[in-house]
Formats: sequence, structure tokens, C-alpha cells
Amino acid sequence: MASFLIDNIASLVTNDPSLGDGPLGVLRDAAVVLDGERIAWVGPAGDAPPADARHDAAGRAVIPGFVDSHAHLVFAGDRTDEFAARMAGQAYAAGGIRTTVAATRAATDEALAANLERLVAEAARQGTTLIECKSGYGLTVDDEARALRLAGQVTDEVTYLGAHVVAPEYADDPAGYVDLVTGPMLDACAPHARWVDVFCERGAFDGDQARAVLTAGMARGLVPRVHANQLGPGPGVQLAVELGAASADHCTHLTDADIDALAGSATVATLLPGAEFSTRAAYPDARRLLDAGATVALSTDCNPGSSFTTSVPFCIAVAVREMGMTPDEAVWSATAGGAAALRRTDVGRITPGARADLVELDAPSHVHLAYRPGVPLVRTVWRQGALVGT
Amino acid sequence: MASFLIDNIASLVTNDPSLGDGPLGVLRDAAVVLDGERIAWVGPAGDAPPADARHDAAGRAVIPGFVDSHAHLVFAGDRTDEFAARMAGQAYAAGGIRTTVAATRAATDEALAANLERLVAEAARQGTTLIECKSGYGLTVDDEARALRLAGQVTDEVTYLGAHVVAPEYADDPAGYVDLVTGPMLDACAPHARWVDVFCERGAFDGDQARAVLTAGMARGLVPRVHANQLGPGPGVQLAVELGAASADHCTHLTDADIDALAGSATVATLLPGAEFSTRAAYPDARRLLDAGATVALSTDCNPGSSFTTSVPFCIAVAVREMGMTPDEAVWSATAGGAAALRRTDVGRITPGARADLVELDAPSHVHLAYRPGVPLVRTVWRQGALVGT
Ligand SMILES: [Zn+2]
Ligand SMILES: [Zn+2]
Repeated sequence: MASFLIDNIASLVTNDPSLGDGPLGVLRDAAVVLDGERIAWVGPAGDAPPADARHDAAGRAVIPGFVDSHAHLVFAGDRTDEFAARMAGQAYAAGGIRTTVAATRAATDEALAANLERLVAEAARQGTTLIECKSGYGLTVDDEARALRLAGQVTDEVTYLGAHVVAPEYADDPAGYVDLVTGPMLDACAPHARWVDVFCERGAFDGDQARAVLTAGMARGLVPRVHANQLGPGPGVQLAVELGAASADHCTHLTDADIDALAGSATVATLLPGAEFSTRAAYPDARRLLDAGATVALSTDCNPGSSFTTSVPFCIAVAVREMGMTPDEAVWSATAGGAAALRRTDVGRITPGARADLVELDAPSHVHLAYRPGVPLVRTVWRQGALVGT
Repeated sequence: MASFLIDNIASLVTNDPSLGDGPLGVLRDAAVVLDGERIAWVGPAGDAPPADARHDAAGRAVIPGFVDSHAHLVFAGDRTDEFAARMAGQAYAAGGIRTTVAATRAATDEALAANLERLVAEAARQGTTLIECKSGYGLTVDDEARALRLAGQVTDEVTYLGAHVVAPEYADDPAGYVDLVTGPMLDACAPHARWVDVFCERGAFDGDQARAVLTAGMARGLVPRVHANQLGPGPGVQLAVELGAASADHCTHLTDADIDALAGSATVATLLPGAEFSTRAAYPDARRLLDAGATVALSTDCNPGSSFTTSVPFCIAVAVREMGMTPDEAVWSATAGGAAALRRTDVGRITPGARADLVELDAPSHVHLAYRPGVPLVRTVWRQGALVGT
């Protein structure tokens, strides 16, 4: 393995308080040495051990690669017209998840894989070095299993979301659909996934149905995560905490009891401001969660209906503008927070032994991700030690 | 001059209703032929005349280059700490425009030019093919004239903004500063500028002072534009309309009479949502202006204090989310609207004879600029017929 020195880093976010200042463990005038796919050394510039090759960061900032723990990337088509109608305040007869389900079912494996790879590459160019990927636009045994197989070709973090909505064929028999999701569909999907997820919301799956989906998945070795409390208050967050879910996602409408439950648990609150941005909905209150002591992650929710962005920098800027996060907190949540939501200790940090996932910014500080909204500041990305093509 | 064909354009925004559908004059399956720095031909793909070279847009969208009619790019330093403190809800003793004034005065010509060129290049990579540039961080005769000379090296649209704030040396003598701005400073600056601007706001210059600044500039052949009604209601908009200003900028706090005045005039209302985004202020109501019949432009206000973004795509996404604009309206305002605010008929449109300023998007439609917030969708930029380096 060749070693590789990244030198002259003005400001390095390690996310290890023992290595530098504050919760982000910021080191000024730093260097990092990579050894193959791992980080070998972190310390002051000038103290670095010799290496086979060198990159001059020339006074820029380096941060851990973003960990996007919530994305829906296996789909076909887009919903441009639906979005434009919504933004014009007009009703739109067609639209909704079912539009994407129909397009996805009709697509070839090759078309789905090409779209998936395009989005993963787009995310990587913007600094995302690990991305979770859910099924949920197939809603048949074969289409859900296909989505998970395709997802497994681009990421280790694959989530079975057969319970995204009730499949159109079961519109009059939601209980029958839950039986499918917890039975034959689970049989076909469990081998291809690490996680089981459910959209616990009025109009999708209620608390009892969500519990059935999650416990069935857990019995097959999948670890739960939950779409919870996005559109209104509900049982999702409490259920997530009770079942020891890795994450409760959205958390837009929380009671005091929900906040307390999250703060007193290992369940991460994953906030997805792209969804509120693109649906003109009220944002979740990150400040309240942070002040209560909950762990907060920040992710894109990338999907063609409600949040068609792969940009974690954009989510950071919006989280700071709208959700009461400081720039430091938002950057932590988009890196270490995402890692916590995926129960990963090897990513989301720049520490010896961690995976060599790093982002060099066209800026002297990670604060610029919020201070310079919309500007493509991601200059160089290394994923498992390899340069990501631009 | 070599001719150049851009072919296979899925959706072409011409901003000429006689060439295509709707106010944006959208042509499907289109082609454009450039002849040197000008657009020579626009029409259906397949009908294009022969050309010396060809670019395959491969089903992507092409739009006019963005016209950013409001930017403050001649400065030194940044205000990262001030921004972070503001986002954390903390007071910040130093800060404000004077921080930047001190850094700018202390900077060499070379340092100012390098920062300016960096920002213009950053904007160009994001699709901005014409950008206005103001002075206003010098506030002495020599420093203001220097800023305008430097601005003139990167753009034709140079604005004298000696009346940005009262210079610190005149803190106790604002009338004396207005005399300077309308006297010796104007003498030194007028030869280097096309426009005269004033920050008409409580804490900066009142209506009488603003009128003195603008009329003095007009007497020297400069055309007025006004920073108006940003932080509260005030006389700025009415003054702009009365004096026939090209644009009233910000327009965040408008009375019904202000709206009527703008709608009944040729003065463009230039909205700058980056400023509201980065200061957590309420957004201007674009819908109200549009419904009244005012011409609306959308620009960045790029500056290191209140809106450190060069990204017009970001401003489009925020304008749609927050200001009641449709995606079509926002794209029009960021192209043709910006051109109107600079009284240019040669830019902001893709029509025969116009300047060859075009942007190819990594998307099939201009709507994606709002539908895919934060994603760097600008793929290829031509400015005066020349490819802008990425
Ligand atoms: Zn989701
Ligand atoms: Zn301004």
C-alpha cells in the first residue's frame, strides 16, 4: 500500500475532540497521512512521517466525507411537472410516489442501475463518501428484491423499504400488503439488506403495521430505522426508540415526550431539510433536539418526489438558516451524525484507523459550507483512499 | 469567425415568446448556431444550417447565461467568524462593513484583483456570463477609484457606490461625507463607472442624501440604481422611480404605493434572496410585485458580510421556495430580468444577434434549477461564444 500525505491543511475537522478543538476536534495547520484505504496518521503539518506521495492543500480546509444516511436512489423517471405545479400552488392530479413506482417497475435493470450510478457519482462529487440506499419504488416481491440487489452494487448500506406505501394492487387490502411485506417479500429481500425501514405516517402505515414490519425484519437479522413524524405527530419516534432503531428519520413534528425519548436513547434523530425545502413545509427544530441531548444527523432524503437533491452542503446551509443549528453542529451532523445513524465507527471522522474518506474544500474553513450557500466548494474527494473523479 | 452548432437540446429557454412557448419562449428539440461572439441562428434541431464545429447537448437543457446585476466583489478578507456568531445567535462586537473596509484599504491592488478574478471565475463556472460590480469598501477618493478601475478589468457593468456607508473618518460629519461622495470622489470615479448607486437606508443615507448622491452622479452621466427598502420601509424605491433608476435593489419592505410605483415604471425590482438567507431576515414578496406587473430581477448581492454566494442557481431555488416565484419566473428573472436591470438587450436571451452567452444544464429542463436545489447542474458555459473553463 502506498502512503499519501495531505499537507498544509489550514483547518482539519477530525470529529475527535481528543485531537483538536471543540466537539469537531479542529486542528489548525494540520496534515493527514493515508495508507491505502485507511487513515494512518493525523497531526500538525511539519510533523508528518514521510510518505510516497503528497497533496498540497495550500491553506484549504479538510473535513470527513459526508455520510448521507437516508436516500432513495433506485427509481426511474422524474417528477418535474409535479414539482413545478406544486411551486405554482396548483393542484396536480397525477403525481405522488405511485408515478415513480410505475416508472420504476417498467424500467430495465440497466436503466435503473445507470440512474443509480449517476446519482451516487453526483453525490460523491459533492463530498458524499458513504450513502445509504433504500428500496421502496417496486412494491412487489421481485421489484423490491431487484432494487436491493442494484443498491448493493453501489453501497453496503442497503435498506429494505417495502413498506414505503401500500402497493396500488393492495389499495383495498392494506393488511394483505403488510402480510406480503412481512412474508414473501421479506424472504426475498432480507438477504440483500442490512436495514429494515417503514414509512410510519397517516396515509402510509400506522403504529401497529409499522411495528409488524420492523419486528418481522428484526427477526430476520435486519436492524430497524423508521420514517417517523414527518407530516404530523404520530407513533413513529416512540416506536423507533422502543425497538432500538438506529435512527428515526424526519422528526419534523415532535412532542416533548418524543424529544425526551430520543434524548434518552441511542436512536439518532435524522433531519432531512431537503424535504421541507422542496415541499414548502415547516422545518424540524434541530435546536430543541440538540439542547435536549439527542444525537442529530443531517441527510438529503434524495428522491424524485419531495427532495431531489444529492447535495449535503445544501442541507448544511439550510439547516443553519432554518433549523437553529450552528455551522459546527451542521457539519458534525452531516459527517459523524450520519455515521452514528448507520452505526458506523469507521467513517465520519478523520482519525488513525478510520476509512480514508476526506473532502478538501475550496475554502479555509468548514464554516464556509453555510457561509457560502450554493457555491460548489467541494474541490477534492477521497473515498477509501482513492480520488473521486470530477 | 468560426460557426458552432449546439445540437440536440431537449429544452431551450430563449426568453423570446415569439420563438417558443410561454414567456420563456421554450423550444423543444432545438439547436443554436453561434457565429463568433454572437448567436446566429435558433430553431428546431435538424433544421440548423451547417457549421464548422458541433456540440451535442444530448437531451439536456440550454438557457441564457445568468445576468447577475448586483454584486460587491472588490474587497479583501472574509467575515466567517461574524457569520458563525450570527448563526449561533451571539453578539459579535467587531464585524460589519467597516471590517471589510479596513481589510480592503490595506490590501494591495494585486490581492484585490486576485480575489475579484477568483469570484468572477467561480460565478462563471456556475453559469453567470455577465456580472455587475460595485465599489463601496474603499470610502476614500483613491480607494473608491481603485476599486472601480479593478472592477473595469472584469466587467463593463461598473457601479460607483461611494455612498455604501459613511466612511469611518466622517462618522461625526455625514454631510461632509456626502460632499466628498458628490464632489472629489465623484470626480475621480465617474470616468470609471457606468452606474451610480447609494445605500438608502436608516443607518446609511436618508432620502435627501441619497437624492444628492444620485443626482450628482447623473449630472456626470452616470445612470442611477438604488439599494432600497432592504431593512425597513423607506424612501428608496420612490426615489429610484422618480429619478428613473434602472433598478431598485432588495425591495424587501414595500408599501402598496412602492409596489404601484415600480409597476408603473421602467425601474426593475431586483430581489436578492441570498441576503435574507444569510441574515435570517424575512424574504421580499416577489409574487406581489409580479402580480402588480413589476419587472423582477434576481441576483446574488455577493458580498462577504450578508450574502457570500456567487450562485445564481441557489438564488433561483430560494426564490421559488420562499418568494412565491414559479421556476419559470425565477429563471426569467435571473436572465432576462438581470439584463433589464442593466438595460441590456444583447444578453439574457438566446435569439439571433444576441451575445453568445449560454449555459448547458445537466438536466432536461430549466425547472431542475429549483427542483434539484444545491446540485451543481451547470455543465457547460459559453461566454461571448468562448467556452468558460471549469
Ligand atoms: Zn425517505
Ligand atoms: Zn448590495
